[in-house]
Amino acid sequence: MSEDQELGITEQKEYNPGEWYAEVVEKAELASYAPEGMGGFIVTRPRGYSLWESVQDNLDRWFDETGVENAYFPLFIPEDYLEREKDVVEGFDPEVAWVTHGGHDELEERLAVRPTSESIIAPYMAQWVRSHRDLPLRLNQWCSVVRWEATETKPFFRTKEFLWQEGHTAHEDEAGAWEETLTRLDQYQRLYEDVFAMPVMRGAKPDHDKFPGADTTTTVEALMPDGKSVQGATSHNLGQSFAEAFDLTFSDEDEVERVAHTTSWGLSWRALGALIMTHSDDQGLVLPPTVAPEQVVIVPIWQEDTKESVLQYSAEIAAELEEAGVRVHLDDRDERNPGFKYNEWELKGVPLRLEIGPNEVADGEITAVHRPDGEQTTTARDTLVEDVEAHLDEVYAKLYATAEENLEENVREADSPEEIMGTIGQHGGYVRTPWCGDEACEEAIKEKVHAEIVAVPLDESAVEGDHRDNAHRAEAVHEPGDECTVCGDDAVETAYFARSY
Amino acid sequence: MSEDQELGITEQKEYNPGEWYAEVVEKAELASYAPEGMGGFIVTRPRGYSLWESVQDNLDRWFDETGVENAYFPLFIPEDYLEREKDVVEGFDPEVAWVTHGGHDELEERLAVRPTSESIIAPYMAQWVRSHRDLPLRLNQWCSVVRWEATETKPFFRTKEFLWQEGHTAHEDEAGAWEETLTRLDQYQRLYEDVFAMPVMRGAKPDHDKFPGADTTTTVEALMPDGKSVQGATSHNLGQSFAEAFDLTFSDEDEVERVAHTTSWGLSWRALGALIMTHSDDQGLVLPPTVAPEQVVIVPIWQEDTKESVLQYSAEIAAELEEAGVRVHLDDRDERNPGFKYNEWELKGVPLRLEIGPNEVADGEITAVHRPDGEQTTTARDTLVEDVEAHLDEVYAKLYATAEENLEENVREADSPEEIMGTIGQHGGYVRTPWCGDEACEEAIKEKVHAEIVAVPLDESAVEGDHRDNAHRAEAVHEPGDECTVCGDDAVETAYFARSY
Repeated sequence: MSEDQELGITEQKEYNPGEWYAEVVEKAELASYAPEGMGGFIVTRPRGYSLWESVQDNLDRWFDETGVENAYFPLFIPEDYLEREKDVVEGFDPEVAWVTHGGHDELEERLAVRPTSESIIAPYMAQWVRSHRDLPLRLNQWCSVVRWEATETKPFFRTKEFLWQEGHTAHEDEAGAWEETLTRLDQYQRLYEDVFAMPVMRGAKPDHDKFPGADTTTTVEALMPDGKSVQGATSHNLGQSFAEAFDLTFSDEDEVERVAHTTSWGLSWRALGALIMTHSDDQGLVLPPTVAPEQVVIVPIWQEDTKESVLQYSAEIAAELEEAGVRVHLDDRDERNPGFKYNEWELKGVPLRLEIGPNEVADGEITAVHRPDGEQTTTARDTLVEDVEAHLDEVYAKLYATAEENLEENVREADSPEEIMGTIGQHGGYVRTPWCGDEACEEAIKEKVHAEIVAVPLDESAVEGDHRDNAHRAEAVHEPGDECTVCGDDAVETAYFARSY
Repeated sequence: MSEDQELGITEQKEYNPGEWYAEVVEKAELASYAPEGMGGFIVTRPRGYSLWESVQDNLDRWFDETGVENAYFPLFIPEDYLEREKDVVEGFDPEVAWVTHGGHDELEERLAVRPTSESIIAPYMAQWVRSHRDLPLRLNQWCSVVRWEATETKPFFRTKEFLWQEGHTAHEDEAGAWEETLTRLDQYQRLYEDVFAMPVMRGAKPDHDKFPGADTTTTVEALMPDGKSVQGATSHNLGQSFAEAFDLTFSDEDEVERVAHTTSWGLSWRALGALIMTHSDDQGLVLPPTVAPEQVVIVPIWQEDTKESVLQYSAEIAAELEEAGVRVHLDDRDERNPGFKYNEWELKGVPLRLEIGPNEVADGEITAVHRPDGEQTTTARDTLVEDVEAHLDEVYAKLYATAEENLEENVREADSPEEIMGTIGQHGGYVRTPWCGDEACEEAIKEKVHAEIVAVPLDESAVEGDHRDNAHRAEAVHEPGDECTVCGDDAVETAYFARSY
């Protein structure tokens, strides 16, 4: 970025969230749009890709600790494989990119660019699993997938190609598959809460919005500051439908042949979109220190006569922090003044700025400024490392608290269709209301205000274990005898309506 | 693998290297062939993928230490982008897979599945680079690419889709690009020598076999036990051809607009093929401890009355090794006898086996067996960790020594076309001979014995630095006045002929 006038966000998050978001992504150098003729694709730049690497590092570690092995399956899937699981093809057929030619020749059978890999992974799992001793089998792959959706591109949120991980597992019984489903949901929630500083709401998708073929689709939903919900990741208990379609059977301890239970679960770079959207502001990107490429930037402030001492002191501070494992950058560029540097690093989302001028050198101090709110404190040189670590923790806590407040203040109830729509229209957020379970009642709302049922409560009682009991959950509010707020029939379920990305 | 008769390699490396290789890959559970209709594609299983993760871990660390940032560019490239660099399209056009339909609609312009990404990365680098301060710019991506070559599939060696990393850099001047080219060649060589226990030969490709558009293509070549050479990785000095085609210019310190110099460099999973082929034997996979998923397997040997004490002792040994950071697996399966376990873990390439029976328990000892040669020693319990680490180093050294001997014994000279062909036919390996530089002389040999010029000496003198001076290099043997061994014209170059994968 070499021209002053190109720095700085011109749109406002509150009034033009779409344009503001696109500007943050572009100007913080996270991503660029792909060439003409490739609408829906993006180029992920190093500052954006490093966020994805944080996701990979964390999930890979947790997956490994819980018995998952990484593998890699082909990019393409033959058409007849996709068709073997009718539920899947019904779900994905219109969204698939097709390879029809290899070199100068037309292919005998066209190949789908994978939209998801159940239909190619399941037959191999069926080959590899023979005995109960081969179970559970837990595979994951990091890859890109393509879904040809004809909607407006929103970098990370909605792109025709996206990076994700997709996990696929097989188990002896229902309990094993269900526990697996929740273990992965826990890990996704942990990523949002402990790495992204974002509370999420645990829930399930209503039956008509499950992954095609799944028994249960569980979800973590994140509420954006503009009142829309983002499906943060999903974990599916597939029951026996895929195993039956692909002959995934095993001989149990009594040598009886049984059909396995399977799961799949995925988190895509949409998570990065939610991260950027949640914390950033009109000055640009805001990142929690857990994922920021630079956690600390040091901006030295000098005149000619103080330059040497200020730079010397700054370099010592930088070295000490680096030694302690802090990701620190010393911005000692000659050609830029401190104000320019402040703006640039705020734009790029560095959580903590240390300002060092002649006064700091003289007093053996450092001035520390928090990114989200500009809070400024003076830190002593000899407690540098512990103070910086405390500042970074504080920044994390501030980001989390703001996001949590947004979530907690924006779950409302409604007693009539008008109130559902009015609340969504006025406040956004979630509207929780008794529901008969019929998709038609969702449609009635959707048509008018584009809000849908993003979650219903998830009954986790079937499995033991500590499923993040401090979690925000989609909770049931209907009582026996309650009526569906839309149609007035008996309520069987509690629906969370929201607009969503 | 639950049936005894399926264990074990039936082909012999010496007599049927192709069938033997395929059997090792399949039975050691590294990869499977893709479904019918997808010839040329493979499924990479966890034991194979973990080898690729070792490559990623090492290269990513070295790339990061030398200023490279990871990014991600789209999977597809518009046809007119590919065509903009005519040299590239000439090189790759016949090998490209084409996406022609998205969902139910035909695309206005078909999209190539990337065969390599210069043509989409260069235009973005051109946007991002404005000033000399933006240089050098070093980007890398880990991804899969597709080249629709109509040859027989050989897992990892030759597949239509393969995983690789591709690095793309831009520099102010020729010296910067040349140093970059050699830095990456060094890192590839280091991967082979320090991680894969494989010596490689550094060289350049002859002009007619360079990457299309490159000034110089450098290579590391690995000699397989069957006498064929594998191109282990390439690093290209692209000069200014791509920069000119894509307007990659910058303003220098005097504000003068200049054209940048670029490089690209890549290593694919073919490296895994070379690794497997080099060390493995008729018992199955052999891996150096650096990359083996399990470095040590413990096989307890018990009767009913000694079971408890043997398993207890074995578990203590396993815990102590794990604590020390050794990747260890205790195979305490009840349903398999020790002989079966020995065979299985030999097949799967575990470098060191520890056998623990009642005698070992009584004497406070462990019996250690090296994978490559069955060498057996007794180790004392109280020096366990240091002994195991020494054993692993010894195994590494043995593997390296065998591979180095193969390389050193198989570089021969020849004084006539008949001798080139006879030597290749009889011994394989490299034949080093004076050459006029004309492709026709290579063709004359190639037609008869399928050997080609895999390398010529690489002049590194233009750059200072320690370019692995202990390296095996393609060295010049021709003297002024020498004649081309094939046509008798003046020799300008020394050619290394070999059959290659």
